[in-house]
Amino acid sequence: MAEFLTDIEIADSVEMEPIVEVAERAGLNKDFLELYGNYKAKISLEGIKELDNNDDGKLVLVTAITPTPAGEGKSTVSIGLSQGLNKIGKNSVVALREPSLGPVFGVKGGAAGGGYSQVVPMEDINLHFTGDLHAMTAANNLLSALIDNHIHQGNALRIDARQITWKRVLDMNDRALRNIVIALGGKASGFVREDHFMITVASEIMAALCLASGLEDLKGRLAKMIVAYNLDGEPVTAGDLEAQGAMAMLLKDAIKPNIVQTLEHTPALIHGGPFANIAHGCNSLIATKLGLKLADYLVTEAGFGADLGAEKFFDIKCRLGGLKPNAVVIVATIKALKMHGGVDKKNLKEENVDALEKGFANLGRHLENIKSFGLPVVVAVNRFVQDTDAEIAKLIEKCEEYGVEVSLCEGWGKGGDGVTDLAQKVVAMCEQPNDFHFLYDVEASIPEKVNAIVQKIYRGRQAVFTAAAKKQIKTLEGLGLDKMPICMAKTQFSFSDDKNAVGAPTDFDITVQTVRVSAGAGFIVCETGDIMVMPGLPKVPAANKMDVDESGKMEGLF
Amino acid sequence: MAEFLTDIEIADSVEMEPIVEVAERAGLNKDFLELYGNYKAKISLEGIKELDNNDDGKLVLVTAITPTPAGEGKSTVSIGLSQGLNKIGKNSVVALREPSLGPVFGVKGGAAGGGYSQVVPMEDINLHFTGDLHAMTAANNLLSALIDNHIHQGNALRIDARQITWKRVLDMNDRALRNIVIALGGKASGFVREDHFMITVASEIMAALCLASGLEDLKGRLAKMIVAYNLDGEPVTAGDLEAQGAMAMLLKDAIKPNIVQTLEHTPALIHGGPFANIAHGCNSLIATKLGLKLADYLVTEAGFGADLGAEKFFDIKCRLGGLKPNAVVIVATIKALKMHGGVDKKNLKEENVDALEKGFANLGRHLENIKSFGLPVVVAVNRFVQDTDAEIAKLIEKCEEYGVEVSLCEGWGKGGDGVTDLAQKVVAMCEQPNDFHFLYDVEASIPEKVNAIVQKIYRGRQAVFTAAAKKQIKTLEGLGLDKMPICMAKTQFSFSDDKNAVGAPTDFDITVQTVRVSAGAGFIVCETGDIMVMPGLPKVPAANKMDVDESGKMEGLF
Repeated sequence: MAEFLTDIEIADSVEMEPIVEVAERAGLNKDFLELYGNYKAKISLEGIKELDNNDDGKLVLVTAITPTPAGEGKSTVSIGLSQGLNKIGKNSVVALREPSLGPVFGVKGGAAGGGYSQVVPMEDINLHFTGDLHAMTAANNLLSALIDNHIHQGNALRIDARQITWKRVLDMNDRALRNIVIALGGKASGFVREDHFMITVASEIMAALCLASGLEDLKGRLAKMIVAYNLDGEPVTAGDLEAQGAMAMLLKDAIKPNIVQTLEHTPALIHGGPFANIAHGCNSLIATKLGLKLADYLVTEAGFGADLGAEKFFDIKCRLGGLKPNAVVIVATIKALKMHGGVDKKNLKEENVDALEKGFANLGRHLENIKSFGLPVVVAVNRFVQDTDAEIAKLIEKCEEYGVEVSLCEGWGKGGDGVTDLAQKVVAMCEQPNDFHFLYDVEASIPEKVNAIVQKIYRGRQAVFTAAAKKQIKTLEGLGLDKMPICMAKTQFSFSDDKNAVGAPTDFDITVQTVRVSAGAGFIVCETGDIMVMPGLPKVPAANKMDVDESGKMEGLF
Repeated sequence: MAEFLTDIEIADSVEMEPIVEVAERAGLNKDFLELYGNYKAKISLEGIKELDNNDDGKLVLVTAITPTPAGEGKSTVSIGLSQGLNKIGKNSVVALREPSLGPVFGVKGGAAGGGYSQVVPMEDINLHFTGDLHAMTAANNLLSALIDNHIHQGNALRIDARQITWKRVLDMNDRALRNIVIALGGKASGFVREDHFMITVASEIMAALCLASGLEDLKGRLAKMIVAYNLDGEPVTAGDLEAQGAMAMLLKDAIKPNIVQTLEHTPALIHGGPFANIAHGCNSLIATKLGLKLADYLVTEAGFGADLGAEKFFDIKCRLGGLKPNAVVIVATIKALKMHGGVDKKNLKEENVDALEKGFANLGRHLENIKSFGLPVVVAVNRFVQDTDAEIAKLIEKCEEYGVEVSLCEGWGKGGDGVTDLAQKVVAMCEQPNDFHFLYDVEASIPEKVNAIVQKIYRGRQAVFTAAAKKQIKTLEGLGLDKMPICMAKTQFSFSDDKNAVGAPTDFDITVQTVRVSAGAGFIVCETGDIMVMPGLPKVPAANKMDVDESGKMEGLF
C-alpha cells in the first residue's frame, strides 16, 4: 500500500499483451476475434458456439455490503481475485460490466477497477470502447423516431400519445433532457407530446441484450418490448411497429462480448451494463456463459449491495440463463462498516471497534441472505492503511459467529499477489457441494414475489402497494405478463426504502409506488421511490479538467 | 449493363482483401493501422506524419451538374475513376465522405457507390463504421449538457438563455426533435428553454474536424466555437466553458482517417461528411492530404452540384488546407440533363434530343464556372441503357463548343474497366499546367464575397440581405469575425434559391435570410431559405423492411 501513483499512471506503467495472445491463452482462436486495435476485440457468436462442448467452470459472484460514501471496491476485488486465482495456478477469467460514458464527465471518473487490479486499456473502456452503448442509443432512438413517425403518418395502431412508455436515451449526464416537450413547430414536426430522455444504460434494450442468448433471441425480446398503449388500453410493442429487425441490425456487433485484459494479462470479458435499480445490474449472460466455457473459475460481479445485486443475479440472471453459482464473495471495508455503525465520514480514520461491531449488523444480514440461497460465502476485506489490527480482529471474530471466513485483500496495491488468500478460500468453497435455489417461485403472484424479497432479504414487515401499483398489477395480470421475476428498484444505500437507514434497519414497510413490465428483458420492475434515470453534472464537472494531446496522452479522466 | 444484381449481392460476390494488405500496397505500414476487424482500419496521426516527405500526387475533384430526382452517381463515378486509374497502371486512392446513419432508416438506403464501383464492407460503412459519428454526437451533446449545467449552477458567464445557438444532435431522422422545450420538471432539471436537435452531420464539430490539421488544431477550433451570447451580447465559446479538452478526448479516434477498399481493392479513405448546405460538404482535409501523400492520383468528391460543392471545395477546403487541384470531373447523366430541359421524370426513357440540348445549359454553366477557377474539366456521363446514340452525340457536340471532352462511364456495370477512358483523360488534364485561383479575396466584406458567388457562379443579379442578415453582418464585423470564407446554404436543386428553377435560370436575386459564423470550422454561413437540419422518416420507413439473422446476414439495407 506504499504506492501513490494514480490509476492511469499505474495502467500506463504496465505493457499490455496483444489481445490475440491473451485470447488464445484463454482458448479463443484468433479467427473468432474481431479486433478493435491491438488490445480490444469482440468475440464472434460463431466462435462462442464452437465452445459449446467445453465443460463449464465454477461461477463465483462478487457482491458487497450496503454501499456507503466510503466506497467498497467491488470491481477492484473482482479483478484482483481473478488475478489471484491465476497466481495460485488456477485458470480464471473475469466478467464485468461495461462503463457508461455519461458519468465519466460528471464526478465519477473511470470505472475499470483500481491500482494493480485494473482492466486495460482503461481510457478506451471508459470512453467509446467498442461502441456498444452508442449502438444501443441508436437502436433505442430509432424506435422512438418510429413511434412518433407512426403517429405523424396516420397512427394506424391508434397509439395513445398520452401513454407512450418508451423514452429516448443519450449516454450523457444531462438533466435538462429529463422532462421535455417534443414535436413543436407545427404540422411538419408531428404531434406535440411530453417525453423524457434517460441515460442509455437505463434503456430496456440494455437489459434485453444482457439477458439474450443470441441475436435471434434478442430480436424476439426487442419485438416484445412494450412501447405504448393504444386508445383501448392494449399494449403496443416494438414488434407492432416492425422495428425489431432494424434495431437488431444496429445491435449485431453490440451483442458480441468484448475481451480485454487485466494488468496481469488475465482475460477480462467486459460486456453490457444495465442499471442496477430499474434493471438487473449484471454484465451480459453471453459473456458470463462464455467465461464459464473458457475458465475453470469465472469471477463476476453484480451492482450495488447484495440485497439488490446478488438477489437479482440469482433470481433474474441465473434463473433466466440457467446458471448455477458455486461461491459468493462479499466485499466490505472496515471504513464502510464503521459508517454502518454510525461513524461520520470525516471520522473514519480513527479506530472505532465498537462502531465496527455495530455496523457489522449490515454485513451479517447479507451473509445470512447469501446462505439462504444455499451458497457458501466468504468476506473479502478491501484493505486500507488506516485499518487497525483490533478492528480486523473484531471483524474476524464476528464473522466466525456466522461460520464465515474473512480474507484480507490488497489487490489495489499488490495485484493478484494481494488476493491469493481469497483465491485459495474461493477454490475451497467451490469444492463444496451447494444447495443453490431461487428465493421465490416465478409462477407466484406479483405481491407474493415482492413480499418474499421484502421479508426474507430486506427483513421489512411487508410490501405496501399504492393504489396506482395495485391497478398496474391488475393490468399485468390481465395481460398474462405477471409470471416473471421481480426487479426491485430501491435505494442501494439501505435495506429499507429510506436511504438514510444504514446498518440493519428493522420494523419498516417497503412502499411499491409503481409496477411495470420490461417484457423484452423479461422481468417486472417495482419502483419504491423516485428512481433517477438521467443524472446531472456537478457544479464543476470532471469534463472541465480533461485534456488530450496530439500524441493521444490524456489527462483528467481518472 | 446486363447486371441486375443488387448492390449488396454484388458486394457479397467479391472477396475483400485484408485491409492490412490494401494499406501496405498503398504505402501504409501496418504499425500505423488501428484495425476495426479485418477490413476496416484507422490510420494513426503519427503514421501520417511519417509520410510528410512524400511528394504530393495529383488532386482530382469529382463534382456534378445540378442534382435532379434522376440521380447522377457522383460516388459511383469517383470510385470507378479511381479503379480505372489503377487499371491503366496509375496509382490511385479515392477519398470519400462518411455516410450518416439516420437517413439509412428513411428512404435512402446505403451510400457507398453502386454496382462494381462500391466501397466495402458497405454494411459497416453504412451503419456504425468506426464510430466517428457517434463520437461527434457525444462531443456535441457533452457541450450542450455543459451549457445547461453552467446556467443551472449559477451562470457565472451570464449566458443569455434566449441566445443559445448551440444545438443538440442525434444521428437519426427524427422530426419530433426539431423543436423542443427542455428542462421542465422544476428546479432539479434546470432552467426551461427552447432547444433543437439537428442530425449529427450538421454539427459544427463535423465541419471543424473535417478542416482540422490535427488534434491540437481541432482543440483550438472547438474552443472557438460560439455556443451562445451573454446578456451583454458578447459571444460565449466552448472555450469559455472549458469544454474543448473533454470534447477532443471524445474525438481523439474520430479525427483519424478510416481506410477501406473498393471492390477492386483500391484503397478508399472514408472520413468525415459535413452537410453540404450549412457546411462545406467534403471529406476531411486530413484524409485528402493523406491520399495525396499515398497516391499519384487522389480522387475525391464534393457534395451537391458544382455551384455548391465545387465552389466550397475550392474556396473553403482548398483555401484553408492549402490544396491545389489539378483536374475536375463533372458528372452528368443524359436523364438528368433532359430533366433540366423540362422533361418529366416519368418520360425520361424516351429519346429527346431537344430537351437534352435545352438542359445542357445547366452543364454548360457549370463548365464555365470550373474554368473560371483556372482548372481543366471533363464531363463524365454515367451511362444508362436507355441513353440513345443521338442523345450522346448531341451532348458531345455541345461540350465541344466549350472545348470540353466527354467520357462515357460504365463504372456501375464494369467497375474500373468501364472508366478507363475517363482515367486517360484525367491523366492528360493533370499533365497540363493550370491557373487555379480562388473566387474571392477572403479579406473582402461579407456582401462582397457573397455577391462574387451569386454573380459569378450562380449568375444571379445580386444578393439581397434581409434586415436581420444585415444586422448579423454588422455584429460579425464588430467581432472581427467577417474575414472568413463564405459557406452558402442554398437549395441544391437550382442555381437560384428557388428549387423549381431547373436548367440555367437568369434574372433572379438570392435572398440571404441569416448570416452566422461557424467560428470553429472557420467559415461564415449564409442561409438563403429554410435549411432542413433534421430530416424525418417517410410513411413506410426503410427500417420496417430491415433484418439481420444469427449469422449476421442482413436484409433491407440497400
